[in-house]
Amino acid sequence: MSKIRLKGVFPPVVTPFKAGGDLDLEAFESNITKWNAYDLAGYLVLGSNGETVYLTEEEKLSLVESALRRKKPGHHVMVGTGMESLRETLSLTNKVARLGADSALVLTPNYYLGAMTDEALIAYFTALADQSEIPILIYNVPKFTHLNIRPEVVRTLSRHPNIIGMKDSTGDIPQMATWLRIVPEDFNLIVGTASAWYPALSLGVRTGILALANCNPKECIEVQSTFDLGDDKTAYEIYQRVFPINTAVTGTFGISGLKYACDRVGFTGGHVRSPLLPLKEEAKKAIDDILAKAGIL
Amino acid sequence: MSKIRLKGVFPPVVTPFKAGGDLDLEAFESNITKWNAYDLAGYLVLGSNGETVYLTEEEKLSLVESALRRKKPGHHVMVGTGMESLRETLSLTNKVARLGADSALVLTPNYYLGAMTDEALIAYFTALADQSEIPILIYNVPKFTHLNIRPEVVRTLSRHPNIIGMKDSTGDIPQMATWLRIVPEDFNLIVGTASAWYPALSLGVRTGILALANCNPKECIEVQSTFDLGDDKTAYEIYQRVFPINTAVTGTFGISGLKYACDRVGFTGGHVRSPLLPLKEEAKKAIDDILAKAGIL
Amino acid sequence: MSKIRLKGVFPPVVTPFKAGGDLDLEAFESNITKWNAYDLAGYLVLGSNGETVYLTEEEKLSLVESALRRKKPGHHVMVGTGMESLRETLSLTNKVARLGADSALVLTPNYYLGAMTDEALIAYFTALADQSEIPILIYNVPKFTHLNIRPEVVRTLSRHPNIIGMKDSTGDIPQMATWLRIVPEDFNLIVGTASAWYPALSLGVRTGILALANCNPKECIEVQSTFDLGDDKTAYEIYQRVFPINTAVTGTFGISGLKYACDRVGFTGGHVRSPLLPLKEEAKKAIDDILAKAGIL
Amino acid sequence: MSKIRLKGVFPPVVTPFKAGGDLDLEAFESNITKWNAYDLAGYLVLGSNGETVYLTEEEKLSLVESALRRKKPGHHVMVGTGMESLRETLSLTNKVARLGADSALVLTPNYYLGAMTDEALIAYFTALADQSEIPILIYNVPKFTHLNIRPEVVRTLSRHPNIIGMKDSTGDIPQMATWLRIVPEDFNLIVGTASAWYPALSLGVRTGILALANCNPKECIEVQSTFDLGDDKTAYEIYQRVFPINTAVTGTFGISGLKYACDRVGFTGGHVRSPLLPLKEEAKKAIDDILAKAGIL
Repeated sequence: MSKIRLKGVFPPVVTPFKAGGDLDLEAFESNITKWNAYDLAGYLVLGSNGETVYLTEEEKLSLVESALRRKKPGHHVMVGTGMESLRETLSLTNKVARLGADSALVLTPNYYLGAMTDEALIAYFTALADQSEIPILIYNVPKFTHLNIRPEVVRTLSRHPNIIGMKDSTGDIPQMATWLRIVPEDFNLIVGTASAWYPALSLGVRTGILALANCNPKECIEVQSTFDLGDDKTAYEIYQRVFPINTAVTGTFGISGLKYACDRVGFTGGHVRSPLLPLKEEAKKAIDDILAKAGIL
Repeated sequence: MSKIRLKGVFPPVVTPFKAGGDLDLEAFESNITKWNAYDLAGYLVLGSNGETVYLTEEEKLSLVESALRRKKPGHHVMVGTGMESLRETLSLTNKVARLGADSALVLTPNYYLGAMTDEALIAYFTALADQSEIPILIYNVPKFTHLNIRPEVVRTLSRHPNIIGMKDSTGDIPQMATWLRIVPEDFNLIVGTASAWYPALSLGVRTGILALANCNPKECIEVQSTFDLGDDKTAYEIYQRVFPINTAVTGTFGISGLKYACDRVGFTGGHVRSPLLPLKEEAKKAIDDILAKAGIL
Repeated sequence: MSKIRLKGVFPPVVTPFKAGGDLDLEAFESNITKWNAYDLAGYLVLGSNGETVYLTEEEKLSLVESALRRKKPGHHVMVGTGMESLRETLSLTNKVARLGADSALVLTPNYYLGAMTDEALIAYFTALADQSEIPILIYNVPKFTHLNIRPEVVRTLSRHPNIIGMKDSTGDIPQMATWLRIVPEDFNLIVGTASAWYPALSLGVRTGILALANCNPKECIEVQSTFDLGDDKTAYEIYQRVFPINTAVTGTFGISGLKYACDRVGFTGGHVRSPLLPLKEEAKKAIDDILAKAGIL
Repeated sequence: MSKIRLKGVFPPVVTPFKAGGDLDLEAFESNITKWNAYDLAGYLVLGSNGETVYLTEEEKLSLVESALRRKKPGHHVMVGTGMESLRETLSLTNKVARLGADSALVLTPNYYLGAMTDEALIAYFTALADQSEIPILIYNVPKFTHLNIRPEVVRTLSRHPNIIGMKDSTGDIPQMATWLRIVPEDFNLIVGTASAWYPALSLGVRTGILALANCNPKECIEVQSTFDLGDDKTAYEIYQRVFPINTAVTGTFGISGLKYACDRVGFTGGHVRSPLLPLKEEAKKAIDDILAKAGIL
């Protein structure tokens, strides 16, 4: 049985909150409807950019239900279900599976960092994939986990029939090239940052889960579509044009910045939850300038 | 109104699991009863050594109830309640408050590390302390959070009437000296590792939350009691004698090692939960040797 | 006056030592003669792979003289002249200038890391470039310096008429893309590791200073020549085929490994100087296997 | 043959430069004469605080000669002679030996960090100590070298008859306690930062090489003398009083700050060499305030 082959752009969707911090499901669904106008491959719900670590399980499940209800036919809905323990990750994964999610993106556990040896990670993901009712993708994001998965772990796990891919948010292109060399062809290596989108396409990567696709889905898609048509030059130009937006919303200003940019271009970013702080006025001004310079505003 | 003054040794208690991973509440209560034989200041329930990140809320609350039921009169029961969001931390804190917990030890939030500025941490802990029904202590543990709280944050938060102290697990003694200089006298600075227990006492610190006190409560207490009697030499000698055990159970072999050491000396460490791996035979042998060499086995 | 435009592959040449540690100038010159058979752009003498930090000034100057004597007409000879102080760097730079070196590659000073602010780096390189008799290139190599030069420094220094480029050894392709966006067109951005050679070409980078070119000049050159002909597929295939060699000789086994690989393919790597250790037998066997698998042996 | 036993405070002496950057030997000798008025154990010449990495060999030797000429009888003169290679370190060490230096403090080599394994460090220091005409001390300073020497290396090297001690600048007191447990009694463990001076004394350490002793020799000595008299309280009080100065001159403002503080209290700090920048006016003001607050100005 072969693995699902993914291709295209997924936004790791933001989770809008109301002023008091309550979940704004209506805004969330409205965003999905608007994103449906673009040629996206699907959605990642409950990713890092969705402030997942701030949500209760009940909130998580209601977001998944909303996304599944609003997505277009053919869209792949991936859900971030990684918790620290196998028990809790498996429990959440199978709950979203029963709601209809297509796959689960699972963070490397990391709290007891020193104990997360290659052996521990292989045992964890293998046990999870054995028991999960939907396919699993590994989520490598050292920026948040302080753990960078090693080639031997990738090599081993990529051969499990129910582990279909890995999202890598490092932007480390030589590392991506290493993985491309050692995984089977049907394993989906996914780039997790727009800063590496064009270079990843050059290596043969086909899928991007890009925070920037929350506010700039059109440009993220066009980098790939022009590249696929052989027009490297246009693809590179668009990539460079939106790069400063990506730096602002994923680096400098973080999730508050990303949500503000969403607000500015017609989606609803909404409020963040504490301990995240609301965006300061100078930061708003800086993002406006960056958007204007990129021809977005 | 002055703050509670803590003094003495607290074990950050381990959470025993059965072979299949289920919570072993009976073993947990039996441990408490055994620890009650020593002159401990109380217990920290749901700390890092308690595999808290692997527990459901229901399991957490049952552990707190057990500890409160079994503790001796006069014992202070501190509970680890830090989650990533203010909402969830506050919710859990007030739930354990209503069960009768004396105070809450709250991890610095850290997932969105780049956003955890001094301002964000001050806002978070201030809002939490304002609304918490029990006193709050800050938990600084860069080994797990990758965030080391800065002096200006400590200075500010130490003046909040409902923030009564901070546990520091870095073992960084010059940093502890810096904090001692800038906090009010009624703020409880607590050392969070037996590797710094004797040096911390030399600086005037009075309280230790020491993983080693799970398996060696007697020696941890004696370091302090001999020191308080002016017998530095004996205090130093005991500290150095048990130091290698501490290195083994908190560094080299982690929680699996700590639990095994507990098992070896008459408490019940029990199993760990996945992704933690059970201890290998060589590691068990190494811990046996270290315990024997320290005169414990 | 426009800046020199570099293009092609430069080996950062190894420095062969005799068994007792003495410089083996004869072997060095013989290597140059052999490398001259390939279509290289020139040589980097006294780079990190040349064990420069282990050489006396007299040895350094004799190596530069040898390289200049043996190079082919048209070759560009770049020399690593970075010392910790402006005084010493300037002194060495102008000595090699007078010998006929074409340019100087200057390491970011880094011993007092905390003091190496953007302002300090800008002042240092500006003063150096003002007084140097040959053009300067910046050398960014955090692996050795623990300092990663920031975009604002690159932006400023790239506009100095006597600073003609920068070698970057991070392999960080998104960072390279950022720099490409902010430097003038005549500023030579050079990739400093074969692990990023193909992706850098995809971004428009034209020059590589590649340790791997010591032992595999042919393949390093072919990646670029096939890419320039529009044959991405072959370029990518060669890149992936030699990548494991690069990982071995620049990562896993370091300079001892690189020198051994040189020895195996007909150049003279020779001995290393203490504190570097000679390569162990298992490591030699591992490199033999990697070379064989890549079709080199 | 037993090892020299060191005890007391050594300033790692600053190297004054004139406005244009030339060495100011006169000021250097005048400083020594002034420091002779205090009960110091001797001097460390060519340490990190002496901007050694900015000096030519000729300058280094002239500073050593000056120190030896001006020191008081009984003073121990230790000289920093660590270069990256065994050859150069040995050469410089034996040159200063012939000038009359008492011992050499040798930095762990670190440029090729990945290659500096335990085995490499043991081989390097052993070969050096075998051939050095004066006793060797190891210099562990991860802040500059990014390498923290491991216990097994310390254990092995501390048994070499010509390696008499180690200066540790980490301020890591639990690590110091570990070393105290594993080295022979005649091995001189030296604390290399005033931030850990009082805690180190509490552990039984007897020697400090303290940057702060350049500008506050009196206080550094008094911490130890009062401690030795059993007056912990006064020792601790002085330690805490001068701690903020130490933070300013070794952390916040670096060598420029240390030199300015020297100037302010009657010694000659003098200018720094590029790439170090002269101290800004705000920084001078901040240091003045800190000195005043500590009762020094």
